[in-house]
Amino acid sequence: MDIVKKLERELFEGNLETKTSKEEVLEVIEMVKSFVKIDGALAVISDLTKDVSYIYAGHFGTFLGVKPFELSMLDTIWEDEIFQKIHEDDLFERHLLEYEFLHFLKEIPPSERLNYATKSYLRTNTSKEKVRYITHRTSYLKTTENGQLALVLCLYNFSDDQAPNVGIGGKIMNKITGDKIEVKTYHHSSSLLSPREGEILQHIERGLLSKEIASALNISVHTVNRHRQNILEKLKAGNSMEAVQRAKAMQLIT
Amino acid sequence: MDIVKKLERELFEGNLETKTSKEEVLEVIEMVKSFVKIDGALAVISDLTKDVSYIYAGHFGTFLGVKPFELSMLDTIWEDEIFQKIHEDDLFERHLLEYEFLHFLKEIPPSERLNYATKSYLRTNTSKEKVRYITHRTSYLKTTENGQLALVLCLYNFSDDQAPNVGIGGKIMNKITGDKIEVKTYHHSSSLLSPREGEILQHIERGLLSKEIASALNISVHTVNRHRQNILEKLKAGNSMEAVQRAKAMQLIT
Repeated sequence: MDIVKKLERELFEGNLETKTSKEEVLEVIEMVKSFVKIDGALAVISDLTKDVSYIYAGHFGTFLGVKPFELSMLDTIWEDEIFQKIHEDDLFERHLLEYEFLHFLKEIPPSERLNYATKSYLRTNTSKEKVRYITHRTSYLKTTENGQLALVLCLYNFSDDQAPNVGIGGKIMNKITGDKIEVKTYHHSSSLLSPREGEILQHIERGLLSKEIASALNISVHTVNRHRQNILEKLKAGNSMEAVQRAKAMQLIT
Repeated sequence: MDIVKKLERELFEGNLETKTSKEEVLEVIEMVKSFVKIDGALAVISDLTKDVSYIYAGHFGTFLGVKPFELSMLDTIWEDEIFQKIHEDDLFERHLLEYEFLHFLKEIPPSERLNYATKSYLRTNTSKEKVRYITHRTSYLKTTENGQLALVLCLYNFSDDQAPNVGIGGKIMNKITGDKIEVKTYHHSSSLLSPREGEILQHIERGLLSKEIASALNISVHTVNRHRQNILEKLKAGNSMEAVQRAKAMQLIT
């Protein structure tokens, strides 16, 4: 199962039963509008109880092709049009970070769940000449009565740091203390590949051919190739090279 | 004249004649309250037409000794209680940055003045064990009818980058394009020291004694010492060492 489906399943778990009220949603939209007027960011408010999103952008919207200061609504929690502007490796790692964040939040008391945010740096696809970094921040703004996460806010903006980065530099921050939360990097996502798939990818990384891997693991070449195919699908990678890079970014292989 | 007085004089220039309306101020306060609820920052709105400030903090307020989610008002545009929590070298450089920013804004068309913001990293004095960096952002939110800057917003928050920094890393950003504005570092502030004072400070930096400087410049030791005293006052430095460091940070000497 790919990471977006995995994330989606857990985000919606139990959430579609209780709904946010119209007033709660309007209150958050007004709050976000004010935020955006000062910050200039592009904001996506996703309602996990209704499977919809609201997009409202400040000046930064123009950069990602969204008209500033106009509210629009999407019939899904995923802002796909914006995702298309992001470098696909970074988008993938961002999904992993959100998955880790979700697990982190589920492990702490409901009353503390709104105190955390993620921050990461993503490359955009907008410029052919040079890489342009943007910041991506996520926090949860409302829970349902039973403590389920209900309204999520994603904020995109220019990064004032344009220094080249390896990976998205994803972190989880405590908004109250300012502390970075030490999370084992992509700990939960590590279950994405089976131990055998991890082993095979490690061999691929070392430059072994399918035939050599088969021989090393005492399995057939056909089995190795089937595993390879599964690895590509799970990591949403176009080829083995890309799969290795992504698995390294999420520390599935060393 | 010290930098704060210099800044203050230019900030108020012509501004005390026209006043912001109560409605304008209330609108901005409400906008900032929403911003702070999401960002967690400590916000200071300064009204240059009335010489007052409003402070409203999110969770970050606690770190700087300001109770979160309570509006308070100051009878000045300077948030001195907060300034006291900032490392004095950084605070000084921050004032210089604001001075540069003000000059930069005065040189561009009034209609573009609200499109820029400064960003810097400041050390706080709160922890004895280790330096803690916070971010400081400034932008102008309203101008008077005749284009004078009227309402200024300063935002303080935790920095997610705690890497040691030389100086405050001050920059002016275009909020619409995300571009850093190339401003000759502390160009306007360079008039703070006279050419002769700069020359003397350069000699001090090279380790020369007053007697040696007097001889090199063909002036009396008494004159050198009078210049030294003026330099310390202008740079708000406690001793020559500190004066050298500050002058280097603002590139008055090389």
